[in-house]
Amino acid sequence: MKNRVLFLAATFILIPILINAQQSPAQYSHSEISNWGKWGKEDQKGAANYITPEVIIEAAQLIKKGKTFSLAIPIDKLGPVWPGRLVPHHTMDIAGADYATGINTEPILGKMKFADDYIYMALQGSTQWDALSHGWYGDQLYNGYSEKSIVSGALGGAAKLGIENVKESLIGRGVLIDILKYKGGTLSPGYGITRADVEGALEQQGTVVKKGDIIILRTGVVPMWYNDLSSRSNYFNPQTGIVKDVVSWIKEKEISAIAADNIGVERTPNEIEPKTVSPLHGNILRDLGVYIGEIWWLEELAEDCAKDGVYEFFLASQPLNIPGAVGSPINPIAIK
Amino acid sequence: MKNRVLFLAATFILIPILINAQQSPAQYSHSEISNWGKWGKEDQKGAANYITPEVIIEAAQLIKKGKTFSLAIPIDKLGPVWPGRLVPHHTMDIAGADYATGINTEPILGKMKFADDYIYMALQGSTQWDALSHGWYGDQLYNGYSEKSIVSGALGGAAKLGIENVKESLIGRGVLIDILKYKGGTLSPGYGITRADVEGALEQQGTVVKKGDIIILRTGVVPMWYNDLSSRSNYFNPQTGIVKDVVSWIKEKEISAIAADNIGVERTPNEIEPKTVSPLHGNILRDLGVYIGEIWWLEELAEDCAKDGVYEFFLASQPLNIPGAVGSPINPIAIK
Amino acid sequence: MKNRVLFLAATFILIPILINAQQSPAQYSHSEISNWGKWGKEDQKGAANYITPEVIIEAAQLIKKGKTFSLAIPIDKLGPVWPGRLVPHHTMDIAGADYATGINTEPILGKMKFADDYIYMALQGSTQWDALSHGWYGDQLYNGYSEKSIVSGALGGAAKLGIENVKESLIGRGVLIDILKYKGGTLSPGYGITRADVEGALEQQGTVVKKGDIIILRTGVVPMWYNDLSSRSNYFNPQTGIVKDVVSWIKEKEISAIAADNIGVERTPNEIEPKTVSPLHGNILRDLGVYIGEIWWLEELAEDCAKDGVYEFFLASQPLNIPGAVGSPINPIAIK
Amino acid sequence: MKNRVLFLAATFILIPILINAQQSPAQYSHSEISNWGKWGKEDQKGAANYITPEVIIEAAQLIKKGKTFSLAIPIDKLGPVWPGRLVPHHTMDIAGADYATGINTEPILGKMKFADDYIYMALQGSTQWDALSHGWYGDQLYNGYSEKSIVSGALGGAAKLGIENVKESLIGRGVLIDILKYKGGTLSPGYGITRADVEGALEQQGTVVKKGDIIILRTGVVPMWYNDLSSRSNYFNPQTGIVKDVVSWIKEKEISAIAADNIGVERTPNEIEPKTVSPLHGNILRDLGVYIGEIWWLEELAEDCAKDGVYEFFLASQPLNIPGAVGSPINPIAIK
Repeated sequence: MKNRVLFLAATFILIPILINAQQSPAQYSHSEISNWGKWGKEDQKGAANYITPEVIIEAAQLIKKGKTFSLAIPIDKLGPVWPGRLVPHHTMDIAGADYATGINTEPILGKMKFADDYIYMALQGSTQWDALSHGWYGDQLYNGYSEKSIVSGALGGAAKLGIENVKESLIGRGVLIDILKYKGGTLSPGYGITRADVEGALEQQGTVVKKGDIIILRTGVVPMWYNDLSSRSNYFNPQTGIVKDVVSWIKEKEISAIAADNIGVERTPNEIEPKTVSPLHGNILRDLGVYIGEIWWLEELAEDCAKDGVYEFFLASQPLNIPGAVGSPINPIAIK
Repeated sequence: MKNRVLFLAATFILIPILINAQQSPAQYSHSEISNWGKWGKEDQKGAANYITPEVIIEAAQLIKKGKTFSLAIPIDKLGPVWPGRLVPHHTMDIAGADYATGINTEPILGKMKFADDYIYMALQGSTQWDALSHGWYGDQLYNGYSEKSIVSGALGGAAKLGIENVKESLIGRGVLIDILKYKGGTLSPGYGITRADVEGALEQQGTVVKKGDIIILRTGVVPMWYNDLSSRSNYFNPQTGIVKDVVSWIKEKEISAIAADNIGVERTPNEIEPKTVSPLHGNILRDLGVYIGEIWWLEELAEDCAKDGVYEFFLASQPLNIPGAVGSPINPIAIK
Repeated sequence: MKNRVLFLAATFILIPILINAQQSPAQYSHSEISNWGKWGKEDQKGAANYITPEVIIEAAQLIKKGKTFSLAIPIDKLGPVWPGRLVPHHTMDIAGADYATGINTEPILGKMKFADDYIYMALQGSTQWDALSHGWYGDQLYNGYSEKSIVSGALGGAAKLGIENVKESLIGRGVLIDILKYKGGTLSPGYGITRADVEGALEQQGTVVKKGDIIILRTGVVPMWYNDLSSRSNYFNPQTGIVKDVVSWIKEKEISAIAADNIGVERTPNEIEPKTVSPLHGNILRDLGVYIGEIWWLEELAEDCAKDGVYEFFLASQPLNIPGAVGSPINPIAIK
Repeated sequence: MKNRVLFLAATFILIPILINAQQSPAQYSHSEISNWGKWGKEDQKGAANYITPEVIIEAAQLIKKGKTFSLAIPIDKLGPVWPGRLVPHHTMDIAGADYATGINTEPILGKMKFADDYIYMALQGSTQWDALSHGWYGDQLYNGYSEKSIVSGALGGAAKLGIENVKESLIGRGVLIDILKYKGGTLSPGYGITRADVEGALEQQGTVVKKGDIIILRTGVVPMWYNDLSSRSNYFNPQTGIVKDVVSWIKEKEISAIAADNIGVERTPNEIEPKTVSPLHGNILRDLGVYIGEIWWLEELAEDCAKDGVYEFFLASQPLNIPGAVGSPINPIAIK
């Protein structure tokens, strides 16, 4: 923590210079936006605390058509992943084809037959939620927990802020903000989505954001991966996503989570500090305790929203109950 | 299929004798209970078709308290699995402890730090849904699809009836039937839960089952695994679960799915044909196209239901979107 | 098998035409080169049978300097794999960093500390031997075994011709044939290594090939992967490797195995039938029962051979004992 | 390290009392048996340094019959593993059965067919070598390296003392010491094998141990696992294995490695300090830098040795080249 203290001290001293230089650091300083302690010193749920029973009850009123939308890409080898992560790998442990060879399984199974399968995957390797323990700076995680609390799997992984803390949450009101549509249908690779874009799109949509909302931004990056094979070599860097001032909006609006149909929600590379990987994750996960959702699939939902003009819905995006996990694959379901 | 024809022929011939002997085969015959073709020759969703938009809209009315219950056991090495399946294995690819050693990741990550993790698991190795392609008899799956349609992972796994067919479903009205409570708080290992038990418990609860319902039976097997370590060596066989006549109830009630807090929903071993593994899976998955949910966790939900007397709720139990998978780990959320 | 018969019949009829056209098919016909039955109808070891005790005793005489060379690339995420296969993934289940956080493991381990790790990998995903069950054409594997004998993992994988059949073999006399050096130090991508090249290099080296030898060809492809990052996007196709007439040499010389420092030993794509993947695997594995070794690392060995002019050595390249596996990662050790 | 210093200081003070009490601590003190620095401050190979070219040349003379013995158990779900580790899991990614369904792979593969497979396994989950980074006490590994050098997989695992340091070693002279035979064919569970046993067996066999030898002890534990199913529930604890004074023999004889056909080489539990897991690993791996091999299979080799009276042989037990791994599955081959 000494380094962090020095860093903060240095930041404090440098602020006048930075302001004069018309340049801001890549992240807000911790003190500017911290939610630490807001839900108690022991809190491990962060902004999911915004999703109260009342929020859920109100969100349920949004179920009017009984129509469901899966916001997940297929979990297979063909989807986009952050470079360095393995793609998910699904193997059959026993398949129908085995029985079709005439193999005699009756001594074991009797008259029945079963197929079984396994998966090996990065918990961040498909449509997912980041746990609050997924990203940080300094040596502290959200709410001041030590980074040392995240140890290896045999010892339980993330002892603090594991995804299991929200195993009964991330269910409530979802709001789609169709940035792609607002910006005319195309966002150039590396375009930085600003607070003005977010507010402009909301105004155009006529949507009001409420406390506890799970916000979903449409960028078009994931569809590009699937529809334009030539884009694959550079789908990732540069990549359109949010820039710093959206973080202030996230804080003010008291949303619980922010997701997008791109690989990292935020712009890659960061336009101020390109050598730091995803610095806004530091603000969002660590300082605010807000959940980040990545690699979502929004096409059918966006089409429906454009058609009926309703961009709000009930959202069931609960993670898997993997204790100590720093993320979870999910199948978020929007229900209108 | 020849064997199946012979078997059916033999069954036909033997029926008078069997009736005289007061004994029935382990499964209903296909013709007695088939739903094949009911939703079209090409249908791959089975009884999830019962969950119409109207069902979902009506189910949403059950969200009154805004209270959520996770019905999933922890996905870790400590849970019960069907013998032969590996327990889920969660590993950290990078942890907080690594940074705490003083390792310098700044050249790669800049000022940020990230933890990442992986999982290796049987898709049937924790709280889960069986896909309709998970179990069958003869050489045909639900709706007549060939067992040959389930091939290895590199070729896509289950080309038919993979779990992705219900990636937008298994969301609707859930009903808990607390068999354990109805039977006085204990069910002996291997006790066969009958149709009379199911109907008796429902009557006692004052719950009416509706078309499309996802039915959840409480047996107490999974809590026994966790609470009574001495039970672990024989948690599985014998195991309390449903017996044959419950299948007729499943068909008549037109439910979409049946789940339980045990390892296989049905009694193990089957009391009529002990050498056949889970024969009712043949009737439920293959003949009826009804989904089976296993290894659920019901304790907090059951307690709440006993307290407020309300055994129905909104249930979000969508599977992961794993194309070609014959099952999926889930985190079913009951919302009251 | 009907198709295969028709194909063979058609080939037989067409041979005069093909000869006239100065064109040959991608593979030898089975009858031209088959070793089936040579070691009995039940044989599952194939050309490893050439490695008799006498061969091993003689090979041991080659150990003169007591110098060992590992011919394996690192098993990690950075090596070349055939497209579509996952790179090997090594994770720590418990690491030294965990203890360094001050976590108290004494109640479990007492005064000791342990690190543990796991791997997920394609058995063909690094330096490896193909089992005879890895590749074939028609519906028969080597020695006439049915392709149906290779079933899913839960049923044991390859019931016939699994790599465990040579768990005590592929140890004997190794011979390096430095094609790269013979051709002047560079082989263009897609260059087809001919029988004349093999024989020319041997003559230049002054090496005599003996029955049972494990032949190792140096092509320079794997070093190119590591040393020339720009080559990675097209390291694979086209790729230099052997062409058809080398197969006749393999048969005549009665070697037991052929390996190379490329991804597939044979030229990619095949120059006669580019749409068929690795057709010579059909001749080598299936017809001849000769083992294929891929992705070997030969640089230090080649340097030593060039220096002392000795291209023969004792080779310990035994596979892992994985029953039913169609390949195995190995660490082949050449000893001079 | 402070704790370790205190511990050593305390030990020093207590030695007179301990001697009087006819009781010794579970481990030798570091100073009594350390090999640290023996091969330089930077050394990462430890006692594998004993295996010089001369040792290899001499060992090669032992190849007289040309007979090979695999000393590996099958890598599958059925073997014994240390409690808590997953058994190895082998899955087919594509199998012969798939093609037998009539699936058309010609557009992708042309006329060829291939089977592929994957494995997920603990690197200590079958016949194996422990790397020197596998076990330690205090906060230092062999030769004084910090335990902090072992980090997560994404960062490379064991930066020091990974198994790749001996990728060209653990090949040389092997000696079987048939303790089981010497003790009359049975060793009771938990029997502590002493230095006297080792020396007695060697004398009976007429075998002389040389510098650099890889010593293999036969205990019968692994065969018991396979042959006596009833033994499985307690194969592990208590388990016969070496006790403390064998460590002094290991040091004096300057052997490079010690292996056995049991799960942990040393007695479980330790008879002096039963709450400390495998304390002799601390002496052997950490203090001496000697490699430990576990779960070996010795039956055919032992039978042959008993027959011809020759207990020494050439041994090729090189690990896989997995950088940063703290162990490796192996297929050790004894050649006589």
